[in-house]
Amino acid sequence: MKKIDLLIEAIKEKKSHVVVGLDPKLEEMPKEFMAKAKEKKLSLSEVIYSFNKEVIDAVYDLVPAVKPQVAYYEMYGLEGLLAYKKTIEYAKSKKLIVIGDIKRSDIGSTSLAYSRAHIGSVYYNEKKVNDFAVDAVTINPFLGSDTLKEFEEDMTNEGAMIFVLVKTSNKSSGELQDLESGGKKIYEHVSKLVSDMAKSHVGINGYSGVGAVTGATYKEELINIRNLMPRSYFLIPGYGAQGGVASDVVGGFNKDGLGAVINSSRGIIYAYKKYGKGIKESSRMAVIEMNRNINKALLEADKIAWK
Amino acid sequence: MKKIDLLIEAIKEKKSHVVVGLDPKLEEMPKEFMAKAKEKKLSLSEVIYSFNKEVIDAVYDLVPAVKPQVAYYEMYGLEGLLAYKKTIEYAKSKKLIVIGDIKRSDIGSTSLAYSRAHIGSVYYNEKKVNDFAVDAVTINPFLGSDTLKEFEEDMTNEGAMIFVLVKTSNKSSGELQDLESGGKKIYEHVSKLVSDMAKSHVGINGYSGVGAVTGATYKEELINIRNLMPRSYFLIPGYGAQGGVASDVVGGFNKDGLGAVINSSRGIIYAYKKYGKGIKESSRMAVIEMNRNINKALLEADKIAWK
Repeated sequence: MKKIDLLIEAIKEKKSHVVVGLDPKLEEMPKEFMAKAKEKKLSLSEVIYSFNKEVIDAVYDLVPAVKPQVAYYEMYGLEGLLAYKKTIEYAKSKKLIVIGDIKRSDIGSTSLAYSRAHIGSVYYNEKKVNDFAVDAVTINPFLGSDTLKEFEEDMTNEGAMIFVLVKTSNKSSGELQDLESGGKKIYEHVSKLVSDMAKSHVGINGYSGVGAVTGATYKEELINIRNLMPRSYFLIPGYGAQGGVASDVVGGFNKDGLGAVINSSRGIIYAYKKYGKGIKESSRMAVIEMNRNINKALLEADKIAWK
Repeated sequence: MKKIDLLIEAIKEKKSHVVVGLDPKLEEMPKEFMAKAKEKKLSLSEVIYSFNKEVIDAVYDLVPAVKPQVAYYEMYGLEGLLAYKKTIEYAKSKKLIVIGDIKRSDIGSTSLAYSRAHIGSVYYNEKKVNDFAVDAVTINPFLGSDTLKEFEEDMTNEGAMIFVLVKTSNKSSGELQDLESGGKKIYEHVSKLVSDMAKSHVGINGYSGVGAVTGATYKEELINIRNLMPRSYFLIPGYGAQGGVASDVVGGFNKDGLGAVINSSRGIIYAYKKYGKGIKESSRMAVIEMNRNINKALLEADKIAWK
């Protein structure tokens, strides 16, 4: 089965459109947690992995997917990337869809190497190498459609998904993405590339494995983008710490109550700062609250995916 | 001293504008080399690293810089990235400038994590972590200037360079980069972001640590782009295997004979296919030929950087 269908199945089963962003930063982690890690003489990879494991254990039954942001693992070098690998494996063992937030892309043959690295595999001495293999990745479209197409072979073989950056959640995203050319904004041109490619990867639920990243911080654009890419699932970042709220993201959903997953990272994994409890309890509370708020907003907009 | 000045010093000393792209792919390596690796039971990282070491040993006295393309290391997982780390260290020990071709970028705080990962450093238990630290990196501008600015702190502290993608060498690069908005193409808008940022990072030779990636496959655009970013050094890929020749890249240089470095990957590291010799001898021959062709074309255009 395609990963897009597994995602939709998990959304309906768990009644949740929430993705938990796993963005480990040592200085954001609870002091007691770090002190205990030092006492136990944990390696850097063990610290990061054990933090993520606490979060995953607390939320895996409540959400369909997690999204490790690879930048926060690369920052910690080889140890960080070992934690990335172990985090992916653990999340998969808990039946979570794993979205690798990699925002890669390059010219043809190099884009293919990124595809092999993150959704496919290679072989050395007849042994499969796929340390970083996830179910879905994010892709930067600046180099054009040929760089996106290099992911299609692995998408087909693995049933994997890609989410193409269309309109990002940061302040300066408009500098290029909002420029107008031929009566259409650049992000609308990107939407066209995505919707063209999406046609070939539609699953049994009518949604495509070719999705889009569209920030929660630009509410009006979101509604526009929804119409431009009817078959694409949206990955919506920017909720919580970046300022997006439940009513902002409703426009990303279709009438069937599907079409988008909403990511929150800091708002969940560092929720101990808000709730004053441990990592597990706080992150679980944050997810329950986020699920409730999003589902309430969708109910009010008459966009319900389950009875 | 800023890395841009070290680069220019090395260019003049070695009389070379060539960057050797280190893009290891097992299936492209000589059969005898791979057979010997199997016989010696080399690990995956050892195979990749020993291949790169042969190339570096053959060319380090002839070129100012090397450019490992991180996609070809990520493809081989943790072992591949261990080879990336060791390759960077070895190239630095040979006094080569190392350009990490990473094409990263993300929203603010995440972009900063990429900066820390690739040109800066972090600490764990008072120990510095900077496994992937290079002298320069390539950056994707699709998210706008705030994502570029996150690299400035590490640029200042380390003297490091960034090369921002302006016009890439692939066929579909024009789909977004050539779109016109307000009478200017998107790549010209990007040029503006780059030249604005470049002003704050000018070294003693008059060139900035904020450079641009501009493909050799678009000759006319190259001349235009040269005028738009007078202070920026250009990293020009697409020479050789992608079709660019010496006369194509002359437009990327200024009258002082400086302003650009030209990358070739496959044309050098897999030159054994053309010359029928071993890795060392063939890659050295390819570099000597490329140096000669580029210097000849520059001489004919009256753009000489040394007497």
